[in-house]
Amino acid sequence: MIYLSKEDIKKVFSMREAIDADKEALGLYSQGKTNIPLRTNIDIPEYNGQSLYMPGYVGGEQPALGMKIVSVYPDNINKKLPSVPATMVVLDPETGIVNAILDGTYLTQLRTGAVQGLATELLSNKDSKTALLIGTGGQGMSQLEAMLTVRSLEKVYIFDLDKTRSEEFCNQAAENFGEIFNTKFESIADVNDVLPIVDIITSVTTSRRATFDGSLVKDGVHINGVGAYTPEMCEIPETALKRASNIYFDTMNGVLAEAGDIIQPLDKGIISKNDISGELGQLINGNIQGRTSESDITVFKTVGTAALDAIVADRIVRLVNK
Amino acid sequence: MIYLSKEDIKKVFSMREAIDADKEALGLYSQGKTNIPLRTNIDIPEYNGQSLYMPGYVGGEQPALGMKIVSVYPDNINKKLPSVPATMVVLDPETGIVNAILDGTYLTQLRTGAVQGLATELLSNKDSKTALLIGTGGQGMSQLEAMLTVRSLEKVYIFDLDKTRSEEFCNQAAENFGEIFNTKFESIADVNDVLPIVDIITSVTTSRRATFDGSLVKDGVHINGVGAYTPEMCEIPETALKRASNIYFDTMNGVLAEAGDIIQPLDKGIISKNDISGELGQLINGNIQGRTSESDITVFKTVGTAALDAIVADRIVRLVNK
Repeated sequence: MIYLSKEDIKKVFSMREAIDADKEALGLYSQGKTNIPLRTNIDIPEYNGQSLYMPGYVGGEQPALGMKIVSVYPDNINKKLPSVPATMVVLDPETGIVNAILDGTYLTQLRTGAVQGLATELLSNKDSKTALLIGTGGQGMSQLEAMLTVRSLEKVYIFDLDKTRSEEFCNQAAENFGEIFNTKFESIADVNDVLPIVDIITSVTTSRRATFDGSLVKDGVHINGVGAYTPEMCEIPETALKRASNIYFDTMNGVLAEAGDIIQPLDKGIISKNDISGELGQLINGNIQGRTSESDITVFKTVGTAALDAIVADRIVRLVNK
Repeated sequence: MIYLSKEDIKKVFSMREAIDADKEALGLYSQGKTNIPLRTNIDIPEYNGQSLYMPGYVGGEQPALGMKIVSVYPDNINKKLPSVPATMVVLDPETGIVNAILDGTYLTQLRTGAVQGLATELLSNKDSKTALLIGTGGQGMSQLEAMLTVRSLEKVYIFDLDKTRSEEFCNQAAENFGEIFNTKFESIADVNDVLPIVDIITSVTTSRRATFDGSLVKDGVHINGVGAYTPEMCEIPETALKRASNIYFDTMNGVLAEAGDIIQPLDKGIISKNDISGELGQLINGNIQGRTSESDITVFKTVGTAALDAIVADRIVRLVNK
């Protein structure tokens, strides 16, 4: 059995490889070849904590099996510990033996960045040159890396409610990616300033209202909604959904159960189920259409699935053990 | 995060300590201070396997949290690998962080031996001098050690349908425990020969019929049913249950759902629910009575619970980290 830290994973597995792994996972998911049991939640009242167990299995030619354990301990912050620690347990699907433990926090960042990168690759205009990232929390950097990986972006605008954090993120982004991707980064104070010009928008926040004005985005933009993972949260503006030609989800069941972005406008009748194109996996499998013109507005909403964790972790472990 | 093998565990944690941990776990279980969610099962059809996820939480003064992963892969035997590999994932209940991975196979042997040792300590006559062990499979040695730990046994008779295996087990038992406990071991060909004289009987098999004749056991005997973990399996004879003054379970829900030993005679009306004394935890908590005379026949049936895994694993990890 091996343990792989963030650094161990980074050494062997790129964002490009994560995007390809996510593509395989979502394709198989939409073919019904995955088995994702209900999450098990255990409350730990003594310490104001909760512990969540999310096993997942992906069948197919190279099956993947594993379980992510995520704990939610708000008081950890007082102990200078992560308030949402996560660990991925990987099993060899051929023998059922636990063969690796991975840093689950980094795995989540990687597979969540990658699923957006996959959608951006499949849905945004190929000649996209500018992007906007809204939200610079724990998932921000991998979201940025994923956009940079799939499109030759000249400039990415960065926005966060906390301007200092946005600027720090910008500097870190320049250090991490500036040279590799030949991209400029700019921290902005008002998203409205750039909405009319950006080709790709990725929002990754826990906001309860739209993080940008959907009436200001340009035709042809591709929008990713990556944050907002409860029915109360909502970051994609209703106007953008109304203007969109195509709306895709990572998983239909997940998004319709969890994403306020979609649940709220559906409930209000602002969009209907007919406006939803389908799952990204159906697009991957060639069963539904993607963008049909350069002026289409496309939207992708993800809430994640244990299938992504299982397959990305499995592919990392196979590489390390090769 | 640490990994603890069988050898690592043996070095720091004795059967006596495991018995005390199990005692705490069952006491808290019967007080309703545990949270044992339903097991999650995932089939892996590609490899004729199944993977089971069993999280458990024990509250109280020193809470314990963890999850045992057990896979069932019959074809592993062709690869010279264990057909039921098991791994225990331990979390620090105070922070929700995964802090240890333990050999789950040894943990199971240890906590299952210990729960029988606990019942034997609480229920058998204190001057018990002889015991009979039926079944010398993977759980046999820890079952033996548990009986030896709680009673000063002069002689233990060993029976297995496979006589060679029984003899080998006997030699190994003498090597492991002969000197420490000053006990003699004897492999026997027919259990009936010793039933009238033994003070304690522990059966640990997957038999579908009684493994001994209940009419031949002596008054005052204490019987442990440790194998038989499905409604089809059954090793405790109906006669013994009828003659018993007291019948205890590790968990009422578990035994009534899984143990053919008890389900079958209840269904046939050979015993009724009124004949069941209750849970061992209720006895520990002082809420029900134990043996009332030296001539009582007492029966303990266990099918296990994730509470035992969680607490034994937690106590091992606390010792190692101390």
